[in-house]
Amino acid sequence: MLYIDLNCDLGESFGKYTIGNDEKVLKYVTSVNIACGFHAGDPVIMERTVKLAIEKGIAIGAHPGYPDLMGFGRRNMDISIHEARSYMIYQIGALKAFVESYGGKLQHVKPHGALYNMASVDYALAKALAEAVYDVDRELIFMGLANSTMTKAAKDTGLNVAHEVFADRAYNDDGTLVSRKLEGAVIHDTEVCVRRVLSMIKEGKVTSIDGTDIQIKADSICIHGDNSMALEFAKNLKKKLSEQYIGFRPLFAFKS
Amino acid sequence: MLYIDLNCDLGESFGKYTIGNDEKVLKYVTSVNIACGFHAGDPVIMERTVKLAIEKGIAIGAHPGYPDLMGFGRRNMDISIHEARSYMIYQIGALKAFVESYGGKLQHVKPHGALYNMASVDYALAKALAEAVYDVDRELIFMGLANSTMTKAAKDTGLNVAHEVFADRAYNDDGTLVSRKLEGAVIHDTEVCVRRVLSMIKEGKVTSIDGTDIQIKADSICIHGDNSMALEFAKNLKKKLSEQYIGFRPLFAFKS
Amino acid sequence: MLYIDLNCDLGESFGKYTIGNDEKVLKYVTSVNIACGFHAGDPVIMERTVKLAIEKGIAIGAHPGYPDLMGFGRRNMDISIHEARSYMIYQIGALKAFVESYGGKLQHVKPHGALYNMASVDYALAKALAEAVYDVDRELIFMGLANSTMTKAAKDTGLNVAHEVFADRAYNDDGTLVSRKLEGAVIHDTEVCVRRVLSMIKEGKVTSIDGTDIQIKADSICIHGDNSMALEFAKNLKKKLSEQYIGFRPLFAFKS
Amino acid sequence: MLYIDLNCDLGESFGKYTIGNDEKVLKYVTSVNIACGFHAGDPVIMERTVKLAIEKGIAIGAHPGYPDLMGFGRRNMDISIHEARSYMIYQIGALKAFVESYGGKLQHVKPHGALYNMASVDYALAKALAEAVYDVDRELIFMGLANSTMTKAAKDTGLNVAHEVFADRAYNDDGTLVSRKLEGAVIHDTEVCVRRVLSMIKEGKVTSIDGTDIQIKADSICIHGDNSMALEFAKNLKKKLSEQYIGFRPLFAFKS
Repeated sequence: MLYIDLNCDLGESFGKYTIGNDEKVLKYVTSVNIACGFHAGDPVIMERTVKLAIEKGIAIGAHPGYPDLMGFGRRNMDISIHEARSYMIYQIGALKAFVESYGGKLQHVKPHGALYNMASVDYALAKALAEAVYDVDRELIFMGLANSTMTKAAKDTGLNVAHEVFADRAYNDDGTLVSRKLEGAVIHDTEVCVRRVLSMIKEGKVTSIDGTDIQIKADSICIHGDNSMALEFAKNLKKKLSEQYIGFRPLFAFKS
Repeated sequence: MLYIDLNCDLGESFGKYTIGNDEKVLKYVTSVNIACGFHAGDPVIMERTVKLAIEKGIAIGAHPGYPDLMGFGRRNMDISIHEARSYMIYQIGALKAFVESYGGKLQHVKPHGALYNMASVDYALAKALAEAVYDVDRELIFMGLANSTMTKAAKDTGLNVAHEVFADRAYNDDGTLVSRKLEGAVIHDTEVCVRRVLSMIKEGKVTSIDGTDIQIKADSICIHGDNSMALEFAKNLKKKLSEQYIGFRPLFAFKS
Repeated sequence: MLYIDLNCDLGESFGKYTIGNDEKVLKYVTSVNIACGFHAGDPVIMERTVKLAIEKGIAIGAHPGYPDLMGFGRRNMDISIHEARSYMIYQIGALKAFVESYGGKLQHVKPHGALYNMASVDYALAKALAEAVYDVDRELIFMGLANSTMTKAAKDTGLNVAHEVFADRAYNDDGTLVSRKLEGAVIHDTEVCVRRVLSMIKEGKVTSIDGTDIQIKADSICIHGDNSMALEFAKNLKKKLSEQYIGFRPLFAFKS
Repeated sequence: MLYIDLNCDLGESFGKYTIGNDEKVLKYVTSVNIACGFHAGDPVIMERTVKLAIEKGIAIGAHPGYPDLMGFGRRNMDISIHEARSYMIYQIGALKAFVESYGGKLQHVKPHGALYNMASVDYALAKALAEAVYDVDRELIFMGLANSTMTKAAKDTGLNVAHEVFADRAYNDDGTLVSRKLEGAVIHDTEVCVRRVLSMIKEGKVTSIDGTDIQIKADSICIHGDNSMALEFAKNLKKKLSEQYIGFRPLFAFKS
């Protein structure tokens, strides 16, 4: 039987502000990426979210981002390699303490937003992020864009790597995602999404936006829980994959 | 031979802003309390400060405070017990990750500023802080005002406790510090300070501002490094204590 | 004909975070209090909200609060009188610039949350807030709790004052609001609320929680737009007041 | 007689953190650019600094920057044109309120740090900044890099423009500053600096790093007050310019 991890972002609320359907999306995933207080989340939200994930038996990852709450970590910031490293250690450490306080174990780290995008194409930045993860705990799994500069840097650092794929996004020939600004970047037909994911899982390949078959490794699929449509999509995707005898389990399980 | 720990606050700079003489004051202490990014400090400063302390062989503690950089954590904030707990775990976790990244081990936690003052008189708050420390790592030592509500709460929680005393501050009959707003709160004569500290270490008592002998346990003396006068005071105090056969060692050593 | 102003808080969103039904609640009010970036709101939200209010012809007030986004300005902070003054000028100035950029004129200032509550009972603080308003622009109206220390301080400063009343809150004999922690603090029966408001507007009095008739001046009623129930209440209140020949107009109109 | 304005950055301290020699550098300048709380400064610092400048009779400008205290506004942030506009209005408004509270009048606006650098080469961004200034108060002078995209955009918007030059920096052929990362970017010989400034003021030209004479308009010279060497340089520069019958006066004076 083939297995896949399903991951989603969680704990992105802040103070009195609520974002996401945290309780609902937990039904469809095996791993969560919890915001660490820089681009979203605050200590109270983090504690509550960690507790919730542990109660539901979902594996937990840290989701560090740029120090930019006003921009939700989605705006590039020209920080140095050295700053990026320190920001990672800080955020991972904070989340790790909550997880361990509740008797859990942190599974992975996945950079957030603009930091994720930058590290997908900038090896020096990606290497700094990976080394930060390694220095905090070399057992942590580094989750990043499948077959990207980021996952390469993590592997070079000696970390276990989880390749993340997107069910509803088009890919360029070099394995990067087609920019949301371009037509065809987002795939709206659930059937097509399922076929693409199955191809990634079973055959390790996907068709690029130019029609070329490209190789891609799929360890985890990114799930969104922002609205009811996203939740419906997640439910359908999971159901269809199950029908094709794909099992679901967190990244932890891959290593044993 | 009798021993005492000497502690000081460290890593209180922020971004381009510098506070303190971190390199200089390290000569006179055996433990440091490093700011965790809420009232002072940022990830880059924290990493640099942790590295420096480890290189010099000084024991490291976390120094969590209120989320109030503008007020340097010195203004009371009416946060809930629950918020206080989460803020502690977050900050301790962040600092712990830096310490462990450099192969060190976090020794203690000492609340900062207004949070320290509040917890010295509010048992419920102090208990929440102590439980947060315990839940992150029960091996951590809780440093607080000697013989206060705060150290009592930490002991009740099952933590090892370090009683902190002040060489240059007057005490009330109940063991609390005389408010800086009152006359006689600060003692300026180094000789008097030394005599008081010796009495605390050797006899476990000190004379209150009202002339009463009160019992006090002294595990660590608070040292300041803000300016050249404070550094001079630290140097003198250390020299005079040495002449009286008092040895200096970090809190770690007390437990073995 | 008798007139009353209806005010509500607006522009409390932040970055990607949304709070409130700003577009909907605007139908029921004549004045809005717009958050200024300290406890809620950010520059982009402020500009959008100011623009919206001006388009709808609603009078605009600044709603300055404590610098505590994480606590939404609802936690007391032990700031000095001097700090309170500077925080006020900063926030009022920022909002005033948006209003004037769109050709509008700032009508009033109403302190937010814990700052409002503190100033309602602390004359020195209230005086500092009022003087800040006066120094920015003495034409500004100061809106505060009816018959409180805050409105008294504003009047003493030489400002025009708007007395704010609450339709659904019980009053103590001294004119302060009954704490939400106590039973009977919130009145749920719309009919009762309407009768109380009519009494305040027409007779200048209201019955306290202890059954005493107390004097109260009503220039503006606080309206909430958090949820559909609050919107329904606002709609009903406005309808019933209209039936009693009460007219609605912003504070500006009171002065002419 | 020829006149020039001498400007420096002021009010960059934050809370308990101090940067700059604000009192000392005021002796050498006719205009100051005061930080507005985003990259540096806080409301208390702003009020104190505005008061000081008004007492000394120095003209005041707003110095808005990126919302990045941790990076002191020196890191590029990929904010939108729309966000840039709102950030400008907010910061200018806040500072303007302090100036007017003390009976003064805001003279100019000069973008800070990375925002200044970005706007010097990005017309769309510069236009958004200039329009924000214009919409707040069209009487405000826009200060920017001499002969740059930024000053062009400000002029196109209908604002009065002050061209800023640097005494100790080398210029490229296109009038931009030579990057500090390149050799020869900073000129250390005071005599050379004075000769260059005189040429800019008297002849409207300066020799580029490649030896070409380029045209440059000089309305204001940027003065630094970070350290004693900078202060000494400012003193010398001012003395030597005086000997060449150059007078000093704020930008206000240019317009009458």
